[in-house]
Amino acid sequence: MNAEDDSFIDAPRIGTLACGSRDSIADVDGCAVGHATRAEGSVQTGVTVIRPHAGDLYGEPLPAASAVLNGFGKTTGLMQLDELGALESPIALTNTFAVGTIATAMIRHAVAANAAIGRTLPTVNPVVAECNDGYLNDLQRFAVEERHYAMAFDAASTDFAQGAVGAGRGMSCFELKGGIGSASRRTTDERWIAGALVLANFGGLSQLTIAGVPIGRKLVTASRDAHVDDGSIIVVLATDAPLSHRQLRRLAFRAGAGIARTGANFAHGSGDIAIAFATAERIARYQRNATARTTIGDDALDPLFDAAAEATEQAIVNALFAAETVEGRDGHVRTAITARLPDWRSQWPPR
Amino acid sequence: MNAEDDSFIDAPRIGTLACGSRDSIADVDGCAVGHATRAEGSVQTGVTVIRPHAGDLYGEPLPAASAVLNGFGKTTGLMQLDELGALESPIALTNTFAVGTIATAMIRHAVAANAAIGRTLPTVNPVVAECNDGYLNDLQRFAVEERHYAMAFDAASTDFAQGAVGAGRGMSCFELKGGIGSASRRTTDERWIAGALVLANFGGLSQLTIAGVPIGRKLVTASRDAHVDDGSIIVVLATDAPLSHRQLRRLAFRAGAGIARTGANFAHGSGDIAIAFATAERIARYQRNATARTTIGDDALDPLFDAAAEATEQAIVNALFAAETVEGRDGHVRTAITARLPDWRSQWPPR
Amino acid sequence: MNAEDDSFIDAPRIGTLACGSRDSIADVDGCAVGHATRAEGSVQTGVTVIRPHAGDLYGEPLPAASAVLNGFGKTTGLMQLDELGALESPIALTNTFAVGTIATAMIRHAVAANAAIGRTLPTVNPVVAECNDGYLNDLQRFAVEERHYAMAFDAASTDFAQGAVGAGRGMSCFELKGGIGSASRRTTDERWIAGALVLANFGGLSQLTIAGVPIGRKLVTASRDAHVDDGSIIVVLATDAPLSHRQLRRLAFRAGAGIARTGANFAHGSGDIAIAFATAERIARYQRNATARTTIGDDALDPLFDAAAEATEQAIVNALFAAETVEGRDGHVRTAITARLPDWRSQWPPR
Amino acid sequence: MNAEDDSFIDAPRIGTLACGSRDSIADVDGCAVGHATRAEGSVQTGVTVIRPHAGDLYGEPLPAASAVLNGFGKTTGLMQLDELGALESPIALTNTFAVGTIATAMIRHAVAANAAIGRTLPTVNPVVAECNDGYLNDLQRFAVEERHYAMAFDAASTDFAQGAVGAGRGMSCFELKGGIGSASRRTTDERWIAGALVLANFGGLSQLTIAGVPIGRKLVTASRDAHVDDGSIIVVLATDAPLSHRQLRRLAFRAGAGIARTGANFAHGSGDIAIAFATAERIARYQRNATARTTIGDDALDPLFDAAAEATEQAIVNALFAAETVEGRDGHVRTAITARLPDWRSQWPPR
Repeated sequence: MNAEDDSFIDAPRIGTLACGSRDSIADVDGCAVGHATRAEGSVQTGVTVIRPHAGDLYGEPLPAASAVLNGFGKTTGLMQLDELGALESPIALTNTFAVGTIATAMIRHAVAANAAIGRTLPTVNPVVAECNDGYLNDLQRFAVEERHYAMAFDAASTDFAQGAVGAGRGMSCFELKGGIGSASRRTTDERWIAGALVLANFGGLSQLTIAGVPIGRKLVTASRDAHVDDGSIIVVLATDAPLSHRQLRRLAFRAGAGIARTGANFAHGSGDIAIAFATAERIARYQRNATARTTIGDDALDPLFDAAAEATEQAIVNALFAAETVEGRDGHVRTAITARLPDWRSQWPPR
Repeated sequence: MNAEDDSFIDAPRIGTLACGSRDSIADVDGCAVGHATRAEGSVQTGVTVIRPHAGDLYGEPLPAASAVLNGFGKTTGLMQLDELGALESPIALTNTFAVGTIATAMIRHAVAANAAIGRTLPTVNPVVAECNDGYLNDLQRFAVEERHYAMAFDAASTDFAQGAVGAGRGMSCFELKGGIGSASRRTTDERWIAGALVLANFGGLSQLTIAGVPIGRKLVTASRDAHVDDGSIIVVLATDAPLSHRQLRRLAFRAGAGIARTGANFAHGSGDIAIAFATAERIARYQRNATARTTIGDDALDPLFDAAAEATEQAIVNALFAAETVEGRDGHVRTAITARLPDWRSQWPPR
Repeated sequence: MNAEDDSFIDAPRIGTLACGSRDSIADVDGCAVGHATRAEGSVQTGVTVIRPHAGDLYGEPLPAASAVLNGFGKTTGLMQLDELGALESPIALTNTFAVGTIATAMIRHAVAANAAIGRTLPTVNPVVAECNDGYLNDLQRFAVEERHYAMAFDAASTDFAQGAVGAGRGMSCFELKGGIGSASRRTTDERWIAGALVLANFGGLSQLTIAGVPIGRKLVTASRDAHVDDGSIIVVLATDAPLSHRQLRRLAFRAGAGIARTGANFAHGSGDIAIAFATAERIARYQRNATARTTIGDDALDPLFDAAAEATEQAIVNALFAAETVEGRDGHVRTAITARLPDWRSQWPPR
Repeated sequence: MNAEDDSFIDAPRIGTLACGSRDSIADVDGCAVGHATRAEGSVQTGVTVIRPHAGDLYGEPLPAASAVLNGFGKTTGLMQLDELGALESPIALTNTFAVGTIATAMIRHAVAANAAIGRTLPTVNPVVAECNDGYLNDLQRFAVEERHYAMAFDAASTDFAQGAVGAGRGMSCFELKGGIGSASRRTTDERWIAGALVLANFGGLSQLTIAGVPIGRKLVTASRDAHVDDGSIIVVLATDAPLSHRQLRRLAFRAGAGIARTGANFAHGSGDIAIAFATAERIARYQRNATARTTIGDDALDPLFDAAAEATEQAIVNALFAAETVEGRDGHVRTAITARLPDWRSQWPPR
């Protein structure tokens, strides 16, 4: 990890694996991320779009799968994604009340690119995941509009901001400011890379654990914050390893190990969802003839499982350390962890 | 079955069980159904709302579960419904491109009734299921608007139309005109009733089987229709039996038996989804104390399984026989089965 | 279908698709079936082994998947089969109390062929499915012994008996004599074949439906049999189409359509399980390098779905018509359907 | 935690919650555990039986559910357990090759107690979970016999041994000696307790993390052990909280958080299975009438989730610290962690 690279989040280092050159999901070749952010008073929300490749996902879907770790959430699109094993749209993240609006925007966006959709070709399956940013953002303002999808889509870049941006603008994590975080890890055999992007909006402060250190307990003592173990987390995993739907489902599940190590226990009210896709080969639509697809053997999955879990844990930590303090509706404030631990670098790891 | 009752659909009788007084899902006490229909030229679509009880579903959810028979569909809301075992909104049916719009409308509707939603109370989980009516309806017109949800909701009645109405307006079934159908069946022990409402938009004509008679083969011969086994079906099952989420999941699955008996094989492109709920007891929100809930034993489920399967099969047949011929976009026409079999009553069952 | 071929079961014909030359699962190249039957007084039971290919399944597994239609059953081995998407043993069928004994026999059999299993190689995952033959067979005699597995395995042939043989010896179906049945169907595009083998032990007589004709109702009237909708059915599906695990899971589910059309509704007490495998390509164990595997597109699945559903329905009918009357424990008798309908050929289809 | 109580395992303390008086699954009223151990040369294996209550499980099942975290395992009985939401047998743990033998033993045991099983009553569904102890134990000796089930069953006690006993005799964990471990945690609201019992046989040494400390990395450096991330873990969770099947399924999933915190990532080859049951109310067999059952609201689940995750993590640590060094087949040795860290108490937590 190169601390001089500006794109790196200045945060405690998780685990032992090497990361990619950006330590983000964009280390998986082809992946890019864009945000549209709304930050005005009681409106603190937005949209984040993960583009798995720069082409037309509808025309060239990718193998994909999901793992529903705790289903208290309103993500849309996963039923078909898992039946067909294919992702045929970008993945959009937003607030809970905006799922319908963004799904509609994604349909219009796909139709604008391909006028046969819904006429002579099948409809499109938009994948939209959400967390509830209602503590900082006034959901009832319905501030996310269809146009914000295109803004985020068009802004997609391999060099993207993290923290209180896009869908992460209003999110809370461990009662601190949460939001968007990303990281990547290479497999020990140096063959593949796994990238994670999270929308982190979960956990109670007393549970917060960073690199095994239960630092949340100390922060609670100091501030008398109440334990509120609620919220959600969306994890998007990308890999350049050629995996089947079944293997991606297994990979997606390992996001849960990374989440668990940050201290939370998949709280009742937390929609904890992982979506994984593989960029190595695109799926040919309407391929009725038998075609050859490449996959690795399951015996080769363990290094990827380790990379996915560690990247997820790092991405959550990055979300915390990248976030700035945000004040939102009704004077609600979520403080940046860097404001609570200003000298963390000189004191890390704490004893 | 009383043929003099106007609410009855004039259709071949399925099975041997007795139906309720309406032979519809409204025989399950409290259930009502409303439609908003758009039928103008290339716009042939709409919304249908099933209200499981007349009260506030958000405040008083019902036990519920789903069964995804074939997941090529864009239904939203089932992840949380199955995690919590609870239905906290009406169930809306519409076309594939309108899911997001109707979901947003349902959120606004819930917020209008309860201003704490998304602020001091959790968000609401709207359940919206869809079929693709693009053969008759120009999906790209996005003709369903948010207001159509309230129209359908307000129109809800125990005496509701079937066939080419509401979400069923543009649907095709076995290459004939499909749409909304409903039926009910009493259990043989006369203790409970199961009601089904379907949005029927599936099947190829050559497969059509009515009460065991493979009548579709004859219709194909006459008309040289191509086999197009595509589309979807949504089945909503209601019962007054007190069932748990687990039992409702089992009940929902039996909708598949009813679907299969109409001749189709859950085609690749067909989103075949069943959602079941029980009206006997409402769930108390935020009940942290242990509370007693009533359920029947699993050994008593078989009569309900039989009733659910038979009601589903009858509801599909009713959808066909209730539907009128509709002409939609680009001169596409779906003919009513009653136009293809004008003398069916005098000739039924055919030999 | 060639009625002069001795291997064909003399039974009503289901559906419209062409069958293979044997109308059995052995039409899928490489598949063979063997039985060990015990039929002495109150012992009426046995073992049936499906060998998906003639080689070593442990060394060369096949892609496979299961569908649990109703989980009231004691089948073992499916958890791993679905996690890995691979079948690494033959499939054995037997009575409920014999699952453990046959699983142990299968492990010993695999170890005898490969002494590294459980030492330097992983353990083996035997797949054993069961139905409860306790009406005719005294389960408490534990009459199936480990040696019966090898007997059935060694007896495997492409020309195998159906009806009251092997695991089917003591089974009841629609309160008549059930047991082993098999059938095959070619896809309409003539590219692939699907074969089904069932262990049929389910249904109440009043429900029995053959080729759409609810003939069970008439048989009940004549005999005053009680409705006992209990039991189970195991469906094994084989295909020569190159399918992935995900596609095989979809295929397995379609067995349910075939079951439903025989009249039953997946009764509470019925363990209804389907297992599907594809013979086109074997899985290389310990293949850490990426390898190419061939699969067809999902858009080409519908003809296979139709073939699988129809083959399943025919296999159940064949099980009934192949079975002889059996008297078992405590004077219990299950009558062959051919004894109840001796003139069925001249009268079929009934009116 | 009272360090003077002999039944406590002398091990690092996990988390912050209070444990029950035994810090074991036996703190859940009614639960008892027994072992049968075989430890002679190359035979190092056994059986462990968890008795959820002292009565007849077949006659009085308990609400239960499972979570398959990674399905590379041969556990039997979970299909029916999850369909019916009921546990109708004790839970037996053993080695991979002995599952069939123990399942048969459990059937015979149930039949001996109730001669109607399999005759006038349904068959019984034995639940047997396994891990592969083949590194220390020569699986091909098939050393576990049916009689060992009754020995373990009869030995069941609230005061039971942990470590290299029963099914844990031959197990490895993080390349150290593993086996049976147990722990309990009370909910923060002091209303309920969750107990965990694990059969721990998973993980690579470099991953081992205890209370957040990645201590395995140091141990690897010292010993040059190879990373072998394989094996399995079975977690049995018990609670006195009245939970439904659906809630128990959610609870079982939280075992995964405890597992993840010990450092492993649900490796490809690891069968990671959790089974949860609730002792508060027994299920009345053949209860066709609607009956009232008590459950807590889902909003009250979080303290139980925390307790289940923490008890699982402690149980794994206890398995390690309770285990003695064992030499088994071919001179294979698994060293006790207490032999690798003899002074751990004076040095804990390490820096």
